[in-house]
Amino acid sequence: MSDYRAPLKEMQFLVEQAVAATGVHSIEELAEFDMETVAAVLEAAGEFAHRGLAPLNPIGDAQGCGFADGKVTTPEGWKAAYDQFCQDGWMGLALPTDFGGQQLPKFIAQPVNEMWHSANLSFVMFHALNQGCSEILLRLGTQEQQDRYIAKLISGEWTAAMALTEPAAGSDLGELKTKATPLADGRYLIKGQKIYISYGEHDLSENKIHFVLARTPNAPEGSRGISLFAVPTYRIDGDGSLGEFNDVLCTGIEHKTGLHGSPTCSISYGDNEACYGELIGSENRGLAAMFILMNEARLAVGLQGVALGELAYQKASEYARERTQGAHYQTNARRVPIIQHPDVSRLLLSIKSQVFGQRALGYLIAALVDKSEHCREASERDELEARIALLTPIFKAFATEQCNWMAGAAIQVFGGMGFVEETGVAQIMRDARITTIYEGTTGIQAKDLLFRKMLADSGSALESLLSDIDQTAAKLKATEGMTSLGGNLSGATYALRAIVKQAITSQNLLQLNAGAVAMLEALGFLTSAWQLGESALRAQTELEQQRDAKFHRNIIALAKFHDAHCLPQLHARLSTFSQAAAGIAEYSFDE
Amino acid sequence: MSDYRAPLKEMQFLVEQAVAATGVHSIEELAEFDMETVAAVLEAAGEFAHRGLAPLNPIGDAQGCGFADGKVTTPEGWKAAYDQFCQDGWMGLALPTDFGGQQLPKFIAQPVNEMWHSANLSFVMFHALNQGCSEILLRLGTQEQQDRYIAKLISGEWTAAMALTEPAAGSDLGELKTKATPLADGRYLIKGQKIYISYGEHDLSENKIHFVLARTPNAPEGSRGISLFAVPTYRIDGDGSLGEFNDVLCTGIEHKTGLHGSPTCSISYGDNEACYGELIGSENRGLAAMFILMNEARLAVGLQGVALGELAYQKASEYARERTQGAHYQTNARRVPIIQHPDVSRLLLSIKSQVFGQRALGYLIAALVDKSEHCREASERDELEARIALLTPIFKAFATEQCNWMAGAAIQVFGGMGFVEETGVAQIMRDARITTIYEGTTGIQAKDLLFRKMLADSGSALESLLSDIDQTAAKLKATEGMTSLGGNLSGATYALRAIVKQAITSQNLLQLNAGAVAMLEALGFLTSAWQLGESALRAQTELEQQRDAKFHRNIIALAKFHDAHCLPQLHARLSTFSQAAAGIAEYSFDE
Repeated sequence: MSDYRAPLKEMQFLVEQAVAATGVHSIEELAEFDMETVAAVLEAAGEFAHRGLAPLNPIGDAQGCGFADGKVTTPEGWKAAYDQFCQDGWMGLALPTDFGGQQLPKFIAQPVNEMWHSANLSFVMFHALNQGCSEILLRLGTQEQQDRYIAKLISGEWTAAMALTEPAAGSDLGELKTKATPLADGRYLIKGQKIYISYGEHDLSENKIHFVLARTPNAPEGSRGISLFAVPTYRIDGDGSLGEFNDVLCTGIEHKTGLHGSPTCSISYGDNEACYGELIGSENRGLAAMFILMNEARLAVGLQGVALGELAYQKASEYARERTQGAHYQTNARRVPIIQHPDVSRLLLSIKSQVFGQRALGYLIAALVDKSEHCREASERDELEARIALLTPIFKAFATEQCNWMAGAAIQVFGGMGFVEETGVAQIMRDARITTIYEGTTGIQAKDLLFRKMLADSGSALESLLSDIDQTAAKLKATEGMTSLGGNLSGATYALRAIVKQAITSQNLLQLNAGAVAMLEALGFLTSAWQLGESALRAQTELEQQRDAKFHRNIIALAKFHDAHCLPQLHARLSTFSQAAAGIAEYSFDE
Repeated sequence: MSDYRAPLKEMQFLVEQAVAATGVHSIEELAEFDMETVAAVLEAAGEFAHRGLAPLNPIGDAQGCGFADGKVTTPEGWKAAYDQFCQDGWMGLALPTDFGGQQLPKFIAQPVNEMWHSANLSFVMFHALNQGCSEILLRLGTQEQQDRYIAKLISGEWTAAMALTEPAAGSDLGELKTKATPLADGRYLIKGQKIYISYGEHDLSENKIHFVLARTPNAPEGSRGISLFAVPTYRIDGDGSLGEFNDVLCTGIEHKTGLHGSPTCSISYGDNEACYGELIGSENRGLAAMFILMNEARLAVGLQGVALGELAYQKASEYARERTQGAHYQTNARRVPIIQHPDVSRLLLSIKSQVFGQRALGYLIAALVDKSEHCREASERDELEARIALLTPIFKAFATEQCNWMAGAAIQVFGGMGFVEETGVAQIMRDARITTIYEGTTGIQAKDLLFRKMLADSGSALESLLSDIDQTAAKLKATEGMTSLGGNLSGATYALRAIVKQAITSQNLLQLNAGAVAMLEALGFLTSAWQLGESALRAQTELEQQRDAKFHRNIIALAKFHDAHCLPQLHARLSTFSQAAAGIAEYSFDE
């Protein structure tokens, strides 16, 4: 099995698509980031992903992390790769130059992040944490706090970790119990137990800054009484150098089914009453702070879905080209490469087309974020933010749900060999399994989508999206050979509108809650079909210019495949949504 | 987590349903097996599954098998459980009393086997092998061969193994190269390498009888030149006692993602030219012999899908009852058991209803097999066999595809805890992953279904099934509260007929091959809905008699849930089937 190679042409094609769709290239601050820059960055990242990170992926899976006496050791090769990753400047790719970053827009950082996730998801998890926690500091931290932390997070001397979950407070953070007691000097004494902290402890950086959610004394109950604190493993002296141990003790790491190379830590804060933290932002506004990171993280996790799907495709298609078995379905020639069996082609194109559609969506969201961040006109920014808010839960949940299916489909292509660990495809299945859970489960994304993003504004953000999709459909209908793509796409928006209209006035909370995931999946299929339709139109234009016929014909083929094999599921999901309460209330789980 | 408990009431309900549907109780030879007998057998088996086998399941997963110097060691406790299993008479449950078996009909053995699969799939794989290979001997072996092997396979002194696959001959057995050279004394000298042999070597029984597919000199090429041989690990002397080592060397075991407790062996036959086997049946008829076992095995693997789905349900529903998190969707009460969240109910009922539907189908097939085996009227037997042949690939592939989804859904209910191995749900995902592959992949089942079982007879076996389903639909339509179940069911058969009519005359081999799995899945949803409809009707009758209201109301609720959440997917699959070639021929995999 050869290691992951970044699909540079496809990535570049879809970056261009996102840039064109959003008009982000016309923003003054972003004008310098032309497609040549994109190509150069992607190529360099692709090289490091291929040579530097991918070879460590099976090693991390086989070795896992070690734990003894409160210390975590990462797998062989991790530390050298980490140093290289930092030295090459990847850590601060999308962070400000003021602190040593590269300040690239997200529409370039997004495909780069995708590469890291494909090449070695376990390894690179620290990156999203350093990136996300830096963004929290940029938005909410004092200048002093920014100066204290961000440059070190970019250089990689320190890493960040998110400490949210407690044994009794998972999806519902309002239940958390960790305490933060203010001291006279402005610091807080932190005490509590947290679990599921990725890279909470490890041997890659000299210090780890934990971003800890905790309650101050007399804070309101529930989620309105949570504050955010920066809690370093080693205290930071006035000159920024490391001081004493800060009573942040790793008490163990989880034995997980996947992501073996990424240490998932349990941490005990303040066992000896000597754990100090500093408040980030205001008291009781911790959850809002965390949402900055959560939105970032949701985009990152959706992208992990795309990235693992891509990896699954690469492994399965390589195997299917090489493995000979069985007779050709038409010619009866024997011992053909299994890629020629239509059912194997079907599995591969199911993966490929869905990866393509959701990748396009993920890149589009990144460009929308860039645009909204530079947007000076309030009403336009509101619209952009509404669009981002609508698309984010779809992308997070749908891309990850699909990638679980894709990992299974890739194993299926391998047959019995896929069940054997040596081939590496089983690792994709195991690694992928967390993506529909962390940073908010699929069920939570679906509720967010349905209640907050679709129904709270009586469907207006959705309607704006649907009318964009209808425009794509109209262009497809007017294009020779794509009429039925257009027809099916507008058929989908038509069906969706009818169902959503009912939902807006529905009082049936059971139906809405039980149907939320079906609705999210319907929108997942729709957004993929929309983006593939856009891609097919652009590919057609390129073909007319006689450019790269095979590549562009393949894109059109993917759109047609998806239209036949995936989009029909939208209608099934809508049908389920509208009758989702059936049987649930009558069923007694008290069996 | 408590261990698996057999769902005795549901099993009994569905055995009764299968018995009633087939009228198998009116067969003279089976008249003694009344529902009291069924209950007694199921209860005893359930007890052993719960106490004897389930506790070993996580141990097998954690320890796996050992391999050194050609010998395999099974996990701790395996040997004692094996001895108990044999001593209690479970090995020969459905084998003739002549050889020490219990000769129970399959409609009783089927739920018992389901229990073994749920409790500890890795452990119990030897049972299906002993059962299946005994059936081959009963059908094709000489009296001498039957006498030599069957009693020992039933007592468990010996075990059977199937040696089919070679590195270059997986799904296409016609490619196999293992040689069998006839000797003057009637024996054959065996030489070759086989892989993926479950329980090919282990420490549970004193001898292992390998059923090896091999080629005699000058045998025709391909699958018409394959013969079947019984090849013991230790030679068998004239008096049945064990002789010398038969040059059957285990060269290694696979490192698999699941089924760790089941040794998957590579075996080298005749490295020292001293491996002898005896022909079973006639030369060049090996594949036909193997199909006896394969049909049996397909039913067993479909049942594994049901069994793992049941286990997933039990674990997830237990956790969901105990875990408190979040607010109630209607009352806003805090810290409710997560089973009260509609999306969690949805996940659980998706598992439960589909397990129920496919379990019903699996038990029905078992009863049909019993009936056909005792049927004396040729035309009736042909019809029964055609029905069994039609339903078997649907059951094998659909129940296993669904169980992979179910295992994922169960992990989803656990959230982050599901990703941690200690909870045991991740093991279900890993174990389940092979079920869509071994004994013929989903793709192969789908081709068998579409070309051989649906189209070869121009749809007549299918039409007979559909008209039975229409009868169920008509009864539902005439039952208060079930009208729409009936309408949706007959809508499904209507849609299917229209599509199949086109397929019968279609020359589009690409479309048929690429759409075969979609068609199989459509029939999977349909057969589940049909069986659930039958169950709902029977439950309604019981309710009218005031019997066990909660249990029977739950069954009706499951039917309604499935109708809303699962059956709509049939229409999506049919839509995909009819346009399944889209994009495939145009796509160039030569990327």
